[in-house]
Amino acid sequence: MSTFKPAENIEENPRVKAVFDDIRETRNSDFINNMWYYIAFDEDLLERTWEEVKRVMAMPSILDPLTKEMLYLAVSIANSCAYCVHSHTAAARAKGLTDAQHSEIIKIISLAAKTNHIANGLQIPIDDVFDMDNS
Amino acid sequence: MSTFKPAENIEENPRVKAVFDDIRETRNSDFINNMWYYIAFDEDLLERTWEEVKRVMAMPSILDPLTKEMLYLAVSIANSCAYCVHSHTAAARAKGLTDAQHSEIIKIISLAAKTNHIANGLQIPIDDVFDMDNS
Amino acid sequence: MSTFKPAENIEENPRVKAVFDDIRETRNSDFINNMWYYIAFDEDLLERTWEEVKRVMAMPSILDPLTKEMLYLAVSIANSCAYCVHSHTAAARAKGLTDAQHSEIIKIISLAAKTNHIANGLQIPIDDVFDMDNS
Amino acid sequence: MSTFKPAENIEENPRVKAVFDDIRETRNSDFINNMWYYIAFDEDLLERTWEEVKRVMAMPSILDPLTKEMLYLAVSIANSCAYCVHSHTAAARAKGLTDAQHSEIIKIISLAAKTNHIANGLQIPIDDVFDMDNS
Amino acid sequence: MSTFKPAENIEENPRVKAVFDDIRETRNSDFINNMWYYIAFDEDLLERTWEEVKRVMAMPSILDPLTKEMLYLAVSIANSCAYCVHSHTAAARAKGLTDAQHSEIIKIISLAAKTNHIANGLQIPIDDVFDMDNS
Amino acid sequence: MSTFKPAENIEENPRVKAVFDDIRETRNSDFINNMWYYIAFDEDLLERTWEEVKRVMAMPSILDPLTKEMLYLAVSIANSCAYCVHSHTAAARAKGLTDAQHSEIIKIISLAAKTNHIANGLQIPIDDVFDMDNS
Repeated sequence: MSTFKPAENIEENPRVKAVFDDIRETRNSDFINNMWYYIAFDEDLLERTWEEVKRVMAMPSILDPLTKEMLYLAVSIANSCAYCVHSHTAAARAKGLTDAQHSEIIKIISLAAKTNHIANGLQIPIDDVFDMDNS
Repeated sequence: MSTFKPAENIEENPRVKAVFDDIRETRNSDFINNMWYYIAFDEDLLERTWEEVKRVMAMPSILDPLTKEMLYLAVSIANSCAYCVHSHTAAARAKGLTDAQHSEIIKIISLAAKTNHIANGLQIPIDDVFDMDNS
Repeated sequence: MSTFKPAENIEENPRVKAVFDDIRETRNSDFINNMWYYIAFDEDLLERTWEEVKRVMAMPSILDPLTKEMLYLAVSIANSCAYCVHSHTAAARAKGLTDAQHSEIIKIISLAAKTNHIANGLQIPIDDVFDMDNS
Repeated sequence: MSTFKPAENIEENPRVKAVFDDIRETRNSDFINNMWYYIAFDEDLLERTWEEVKRVMAMPSILDPLTKEMLYLAVSIANSCAYCVHSHTAAARAKGLTDAQHSEIIKIISLAAKTNHIANGLQIPIDDVFDMDNS
Repeated sequence: MSTFKPAENIEENPRVKAVFDDIRETRNSDFINNMWYYIAFDEDLLERTWEEVKRVMAMPSILDPLTKEMLYLAVSIANSCAYCVHSHTAAARAKGLTDAQHSEIIKIISLAAKTNHIANGLQIPIDDVFDMDNS
Repeated sequence: MSTFKPAENIEENPRVKAVFDDIRETRNSDFINNMWYYIAFDEDLLERTWEEVKRVMAMPSILDPLTKEMLYLAVSIANSCAYCVHSHTAAARAKGLTDAQHSEIIKIISLAAKTNHIANGLQIPIDDVFDMDNS
């Protein structure tokens, strides 16, 4: 279910088509996932979101592409975004995520959540040595 | 501020001392951060939490130690755990996190949060190809 | 899917009928959305929830009805409540939300989430001038 | 630090004084915690919030007072509300929470968070038998 | 929809079968819910998750089984885990949760969320008496 | 406390100075809040974050500046970002937020959180009429 219905034939809009073409070329795939169809009603939102996703996630950088997808997935899980968990699990697999790696990140993410709730639960005070302002 | 006050001389408890000694040896450091002092009032909670943290985070595995800390940090940020953000940023630095890497993961984490809110905001339907049950 | 199945013919209960009639009259519509059917198993929960929603959201106040719905929607997105995002997007549209406004609030909400994660990620200290207790 | 500074002598306002007196009488204590001082700038917010807290938490009901405080604490931890974790840990202790119970609820809360992240992480489909609409 | 497809005949794996048998015996039921099928691709994740869930939730402890399920449910609601809300509502019902109790915990959980947002919204400072480190 | 210590004399970096000057000019104020000092270690992060905040929040648009700040604040409260709640409450006040409006948005935000938890708690199914894909 969705709160928004994308327009038919949305690629007839040249600004939308330009972004979709760049997505296809960047990903070397004809497939455009729903995220882009659903935000295409506002060309500005579409163009800027894609520009940022492309720059941060698809351009070469210090971190390798799979590590970046794993981080994206970790945040999406913690923020309970079903769409994003699905799309970034698929993206991570496309970049080589193995079952063994998948299992390991689930162990780390769920352990982090567990200790997050312990620390928040007891309101554990931050150690002075962790405070960079006093270093 | 804390909702709990650790006992004085808590290492006089041999079960607590055994865990603290293992933390020091595993980390090759004399420093024990507050997390462990504050959960030491229940030896079972202390022993099992450390056992899991050690196994998942400190033992050799498929992912390298820095990647694991970055994932832990990503979840802690999304879950708004101030203690955990501080302790795992320190841990990531101890494992070699550079300023450039730190900046890059902040860019990825904050972009993920942004698109999480876009996808949840428009309730974008999950693409059929992402559904593994139908694959 | 639901964890609860509303009773059949729940409006035969006069307390439920009284609330449903007030919802219809207040909204000038025959439609009762699922929220009210699903909490009607406890008349007290139904009556008090509706009384608060009516008073805060439907009664004239300083803020205009559309602004109030946009705020409600912003919180529902951040809290990842799929039902509430759907129902309050519909309510906002009924109160005049245009596509251009919809797009703008998505841009604000997702930017806020992005900087929330930056500020939590770096644990940026609160500026003294923001502290009203010291003003 | 606070974003709001309560007025001096706020109990000179008779509506505020009436609520504060009722808090003192209900709790059989002279102490008024900051929550009530900080929302007293709007008498309506103060009166209605206290009315609901009193009715749900302080009036006799099916659940015993300590169980109710533990549930309140669990939600406050998951929602990362530092103020609420502090105030409801204190309230739970005042109602008899022992260290052993405190430790046990921390174990349950943190385990729940762990499996929440596993289930959200793998997007585990809901079993048909859990769907009450089909029962 | 799921991001993972469990293997067919997964119980042919003896480590998986051993866990599933223990789940059936512990719960005195033939039914294995999806959680366990979906994490069975990694025997270690399956065994350790079940061991912890069994120890914390199924073994006799200070808190009674229904109170423990209610706490688990409260966290799952706040963390917006649809799967967990469904499975732990079912578990709570199996342990005797009545409609009246269900309604009461919903009132407590939703009130807690309300005051969590008030306290976070005004950044109410924590009362000195709540700070155990200074006690 | 912070996990990062901004460099001394950071405005000696011309890219940082250019952004800080634009912040001062846009806001017509000499004050630069900590957010910008703490992300200035990465000029790209600083420049792009400010560009987006300026474009979305400071440029004329359909929504008025105060409404935009209220939406930003609502998300920051729900995401439990203490820094952002402080900075955007101050920003909202600078744009004219009155005590009466402040109180009203707190009532809306906290009510939304309450019904978010009711809807998530009972997993209320989304009404068919809310599904735009079927419209």
